[in-house]
Formats: sequence, C-alpha cells, structure tokens
Amino acid sequence: MRILMSGFGTVGQGFAEVMILRRGFFREKYGKDIDIVCVMDSSTYVSDPAGLSPGELLERKRSTGKVGTKGYTDSAQIMDSVEYDVLVEVSPTDINTGGVGLKNIRHALESGKDVITVNKGPLALCFCELVAIAKKNGCKLRFEGSVGGAMPIINLCRENLVGEKISSIRGIFNGTCNFILSKMDNGQSFEQVLKEAQQMGYAETDPTNDVEGYDSACKIVILANSIFRRSVTFSDVKITGISSITSEAISLAASNNMVIRLIGEVSRDKLEVSPRLVPRGHPLSIVGTLNAAQVVTDLAGPITISGRGAGKIETASAILSDLVSIMDDRKER
Amino acid sequence: MRILMSGFGTVGQGFAEVMILRRGFFREKYGKDIDIVCVMDSSTYVSDPAGLSPGELLERKRSTGKVGTKGYTDSAQIMDSVEYDVLVEVSPTDINTGGVGLKNIRHALESGKDVITVNKGPLALCFCELVAIAKKNGCKLRFEGSVGGAMPIINLCRENLVGEKISSIRGIFNGTCNFILSKMDNGQSFEQVLKEAQQMGYAETDPTNDVEGYDSACKIVILANSIFRRSVTFSDVKITGISSITSEAISLAASNNMVIRLIGEVSRDKLEVSPRLVPRGHPLSIVGTLNAAQVVTDLAGPITISGRGAGKIETASAILSDLVSIMDDRKER
Repeated sequence: MRILMSGFGTVGQGFAEVMILRRGFFREKYGKDIDIVCVMDSSTYVSDPAGLSPGELLERKRSTGKVGTKGYTDSAQIMDSVEYDVLVEVSPTDINTGGVGLKNIRHALESGKDVITVNKGPLALCFCELVAIAKKNGCKLRFEGSVGGAMPIINLCRENLVGEKISSIRGIFNGTCNFILSKMDNGQSFEQVLKEAQQMGYAETDPTNDVEGYDSACKIVILANSIFRRSVTFSDVKITGISSITSEAISLAASNNMVIRLIGEVSRDKLEVSPRLVPRGHPLSIVGTLNAAQVVTDLAGPITISGRGAGKIETASAILSDLVSIMDDRKER
Repeated sequence: MRILMSGFGTVGQGFAEVMILRRGFFREKYGKDIDIVCVMDSSTYVSDPAGLSPGELLERKRSTGKVGTKGYTDSAQIMDSVEYDVLVEVSPTDINTGGVGLKNIRHALESGKDVITVNKGPLALCFCELVAIAKKNGCKLRFEGSVGGAMPIINLCRENLVGEKISSIRGIFNGTCNFILSKMDNGQSFEQVLKEAQQMGYAETDPTNDVEGYDSACKIVILANSIFRRSVTFSDVKITGISSITSEAISLAASNNMVIRLIGEVSRDKLEVSPRLVPRGHPLSIVGTLNAAQVVTDLAGPITISGRGAGKIETASAILSDLVSIMDDRKER
C-alpha cells in the first residue's frame, strides 16, 4: 500500500507521526506495510518507490522548513511520475477556490486512485463533482477528518447508523467558537475571550473564518452532501456568527438554565449555522474546544458524539480511520 | 435469512415492529427478506418455516398475553426442531444464574448459529465461555443493545476506533440513576425523586438493581470482556450505588460547578461503579435518562457517545444494527 501525501503542515506531520506509531498495527492486521512513497509541500517534493522514512521527513521539515529535496511547479506532473495507491490530501484549505487541494484530489480520482482528505475547501465547493469522478473511476473518496477532526461523525452515520433514517444533524463544528462561548458563560465579554483565545493559539489573528461561522458552514455542507445526499455548496448555507453575542445575552440564557452555542444544523430542507440556546445538561451544552454532533434517527432516537475537533494527532487519527476502511475494503475485494 | 426469537416482552415486541418498518430496507440493501420463523415466550411458541407475520405475533401477544399457539417445556427442543440462521435472544435478564437466556445462547452457538442478544445476565456471567463456543463453531455473538441500549458504544470501539489504543471507558450506563441524580440537581431528595421515577415508570418497584449500581456493573463487565479482552465477571466489580447520595452532597458539588453522576469505569486494571464528581459542561454531565460513554484513546483523545439507554424501539434498533453487521459479514463470505 503506497501513499502519496500532498501537504506537510501540522496535519501532514501528525500523519507521519501516526505512521511511525502504527507500523506494527498495520503489519499485524493486514500483514503488510504502508509506505509513504512521495510527499509534496507547497514548493518541494521528495519521492522513493521503496518508501520514505517518516522520521526523516519530519526531521527535514523541522530543520529546513521544507519536506522535499527538489523543487516543482506542477503537482499533477509529480503525481503522474509516482506509482501510488492512495492520495492523502492535507494541504492548506481554501474555501474560495478549493486551491491546490481541489486540483490534486481531482487529479488523483481521475487517475483511479483512492483519496483521503481533511481539506474542507474542495469538499464544500465541489463535493458532488468529486464523488461523481470517484464513482466513475471505481475509487474511494474518504474525508472523516474534514468534519469535527477526531470526532467520527461521518463513519458513525455511514456505518453504525446505516439501518436508521436520519432526519437531522445538529452540532458544534468549531472548537474556537465553543471555547469563546463557554468562556463567556463565566461573565467575560466576547472581545476579552477572543483575545485570550488568540493568545492561547485557539483563534487565528484574523478570526473571521471561525467566529463568523464560515468554518462551521463548510462542515455542514459536507454533511449535507455526504449523509443527506443533497447537492449543496457553501453559498447555500444561512450563516450567523457569534461576534455580536453579548454578555447580557449569555446572562439571560444562564438565568433560564441555558447556554448559547454556535450550532450548525442540516436536514433535508435546512442548512444553517447560528447561535442557539441549549439547555444545561444537554449533550450539546459542552464546554471548551470540543466538537459535538447530535444525529436524530427514527428508531434509535438522538445519538450524540463528541471529540476533539482539531489538533495535529487528533486530525491525523481520522486519516488513520479512513485508511483502515480503505484497507478493509481492499481486503474484501 | 431466518430468525428465531427467544423472548417476546417489550424489546421482543419492539424488534417485531422494527422488522415491519425495515422490510423495504432489507429488500433494497440485500435483495432478500428477513423472516422470523419461530418465536418463544416463557411458556408458548409458534413457528412457520415460511415466516411468521410480525403484525400477527404482536396482535396475538396483545390479545392473549402469549405469543405462541402451543405450549412447550424445553426451549432447546424447540430450537432443534426449527431451521434458522440467527437467534435473537431477548428473554428477561437474570444476573444471578443467566437464566433461560444463557441456556438458549449456548445452545444456538453450539449448533453453529449466529446470536444477537441484549440480555446482560448471560454476558456478565459467562462472556468468555460464550465467545469461545462462538469461535469454535465459526459463528457470531453480537450484543450491541446489552450496553447502553441505542447508544452504539460497542460498534464504535470495534469499528470506528479500531486503529486506536483504548486506555479506558468511563460512562453513565443506567438511565434511572441519571434521571434521579439530575433531578436531585434541582434540590429534591433521593427519596422524593425515586418516588417520582417510579410513578413515571423510569424506576422499578424494587429499584435495587438500578440504584445500587448492579445494572451498571453488568455493562462494564461486558465492556471489559469485549473491548479490553479481560476475563472478568460480575463479582469482580467494585460497586457503590447512589442511595446514600444526599441533597447536601449535590449542593456542595453545584457550588463548585460540578454535578454528581453514577460512573462506571473500565480499563486494563480498573472495574468500578461509583458516584463521581463531573464538571458542568463535561460530556458526561448530561441530564435525564440518557446513557453516555467516554472512550479514551491514544491518538483521537477522548470520544464521547450518548443516546437513549433503554426503550422498546431504541433497544430494538441496536438489534437491527447487529443484524445489519451479520448480513454484511455474510455478504462478504
């Protein structure tokens, strides 16, 4: 099993670490190794058909800032020059154009390769197109880590709840907003907590993408397309962020034993991100940077899952779970 | 696919209803019907190799109090007289001896039949023996509904988290206790809330099994054996119930922004049920009759799942998910 990686930022490096940690697991479970045969970052690449050492990749990135030993201009050309089975696409997300991630995913699927990605942009913009290319070429497109990081919401719906009729999914899909709102529960203002979140590295210098709900919107677009088989894109989401939530609103909620959380909701006819009142003790009333999603089903009732929505190793763990699924599928064929 | 059902109480009737609701699903997904070919309750049985109508079974149970048309004394004899593929064991649980459920599960596995059960007693008492019989005879033993009802904790660990190293599972495994404790958060005493729970049908006339933690203990024994591959039984669990929790303890917790919940914990070296302090906003601080379980993994971090721990259709939905797994396994063979 040969992997081509595009992107070697935080998540890519996390995946390399996971490959070191799970070498024994793959040998034991499948009787074979997983080899990373090529890695590209934004300007360099390195490849070896016999497999690259994840430890060396990490070391070179750390010491030189680049993963590769050679420069390149066209990622498609590099991809065509390598024999691989699965593309792991973890380049930086671009929710306006899909960026190089979209180009690489498209190219791999068109070449009949399986793809695992955590890159929200391409999925939020072109989900149906990508699924159609995958189907036409008989390959898999997996993206567990693109929604909720380590929280296995997609596989939960597709595997464990396959006998259920899912009527809606409501959840917390952005850890930064949840950190801010749950800190505001203690009486601080939005501005104060945002500053704190930025200092702690939970929020970016320009927090727009998180606090205005755009990141959450990408995730519910992915759920709408993948779980509800809708054909929607980012611009179809009705979005309200949390930047205008006041301490007064939080206090008023608290006096009614409620909290305010940024909730993304998707169903057959709903696609919305907005701050909502959640009763204390409800599975979606959680605090901190966690993500959570409540799946409403006809027989089992509401099933809620929560977990870390971000993090290097956490997000890489979602890629691992997709890789295991792909290995299992190949075993069966 | 032919099903033999032992037991036709609440969950058994729920399963019959689910079979009516999902007839189309099985036809569409597997191109075949699932037929219930025999049902036994405590004293009667009915069988038809061409398949029984679930609607007629429900109607007869409702009007006569019995599911069957003929009496029997030995369930093994009935089982031997029927051709079936899967035993669905949903007879009343007996956590002291395993009861007739244990006898039927053993007998089916020894005959090489797959078994789906939600019956905690046999699993809490003889898990390793039953798994060994299943393995020897090349058949499946599935029991998703035995822990947490509709909450898919076992399949989550076995399927979605298969690439993870699970270090512990901590959770709320008894909805009655959680209902009582979360009502006590509002200032009522244990005795008051217990009475209320009994009136609402959430607690039994003799609530010992729930409030003393015995029911939760059975569930963590099942998790210890199935997820941690330990070899433990009910008597190995260190158990403290909730009957001595005072309003004062709850108030003291609340003043520290905590709640008290009955938590079952299992790891390589722990097997314990006891009331514990849980911070408000933690995924295990939920209110009402829900069950919840937090799985601590090495890569993904803590993953928490919650859902309805009991209920006729909810528990039947877990049997459905096991049935789907068995169908998928057979498809692959």
